[in-house]
Amino acid sequence: MSNRGTMAEASPRQQRRKARTRQALIDAAVALIAAGRAEQATIQEITDQADVGFGTFYNYFETKEQLFELASTEVLEHWGRVLDASAESITDPVEVFTAKFRLSGRVGRTHPDLARFLTELGLDALARPDGLGPRARRDLAHAFDAGRLRAASAQVALGAVAGALISLLELQLSTPSGVDDAVVDQLTAGLLRMMGLSDTEADDMVLRPLPEARF
Amino acid sequence: MSNRGTMAEASPRQQRRKARTRQALIDAAVALIAAGRAEQATIQEITDQADVGFGTFYNYFETKEQLFELASTEVLEHWGRVLDASAESITDPVEVFTAKFRLSGRVGRTHPDLARFLTELGLDALARPDGLGPRARRDLAHAFDAGRLRAASAQVALGAVAGALISLLELQLSTPSGVDDAVVDQLTAGLLRMMGLSDTEADDMVLRPLPEARF
Repeated sequence: MSNRGTMAEASPRQQRRKARTRQALIDAAVALIAAGRAEQATIQEITDQADVGFGTFYNYFETKEQLFELASTEVLEHWGRVLDASAESITDPVEVFTAKFRLSGRVGRTHPDLARFLTELGLDALARPDGLGPRARRDLAHAFDAGRLRAASAQVALGAVAGALISLLELQLSTPSGVDDAVVDQLTAGLLRMMGLSDTEADDMVLRPLPEARF
Repeated sequence: MSNRGTMAEASPRQQRRKARTRQALIDAAVALIAAGRAEQATIQEITDQADVGFGTFYNYFETKEQLFELASTEVLEHWGRVLDASAESITDPVEVFTAKFRLSGRVGRTHPDLARFLTELGLDALARPDGLGPRARRDLAHAFDAGRLRAASAQVALGAVAGALISLLELQLSTPSGVDDAVVDQLTAGLLRMMGLSDTEADDMVLRPLPEARF
């Protein structure tokens, strides 16, 4: 009876503590992935970084891979949701794609950790069922369906878009001064020309007001 | 004396045999990389595939990584040299880039093993000091210097080109019937528009006779 009472009292606090510990482990994994050390990192390193005991790890995850997979999903889903929210009020599907690419192309300077995360994943990010790939695919499909963009293959166009974004972020991380907003926007216009927009349309598109992204 | 004589007689044959064994190990590594099994492959698997004894491995290489690194260089350098040779007689730097991209974009159907090799490497291929990255960088620089192409950043343009090629090859490998020569050429034209060519110039460029690639 007293035992049940104790559990009932402690439970919400315990749950909060467990949730915090779990999140600390996920945050540690996110930081290690961003530092490009996901493969080498030991569980000891992860628990040190999360400031929890070594054994604690196994109360939450079975393997390192399970934690890193979850951490990847969390980061990419966050990025994707921020972009979705930022473009919510835009109706033209080409402008939706344009705004999201312009915002993502600025992440190397505004949120280097996020950028490093994507450059570490490389094109594999596209194959994931979460995060940026499916959203970019959906946004481009809308623009293709509306007859506003064209490509011999949407998948290949997306590969070019992703390769461009990753290279852009790599360049920003290595030489931040070399990639200002104008470079990002010129590149975006280039990708729009690749997908069938005229010079004028593409240039106009990247001059539109850019919504705010709340990462 | 007789020992020296024996060695002198046996030496060329021994050397040929050693060269063959070394090549068999490299070929095995190439096949394993193409199958996407470079990371998991054991030395036993490599020597089995090469049809040599397990211990033989260490007469030629110190680690698995050393062999795989050499195998990667060999494959990418071969691809690069074949492309260089195929475009030897072309003088317009834009046409050089165009021909090489069109040829590379066909590799998924003509040489699936090669294609799989590049799709496994992903964008990391660009960072290597050998093979396709430096050659593509050089070819694009020629076209930029000649004022025939333009981009806010040559490195980012190259990232888009590489991302497009890798996605194209992935698509060819997964659904060969979906990516015929016309799709490859339309994509190439898209990349040329991205780098500043007009619709007409880009379409004209991918209609030029394609040189033969002797892989």
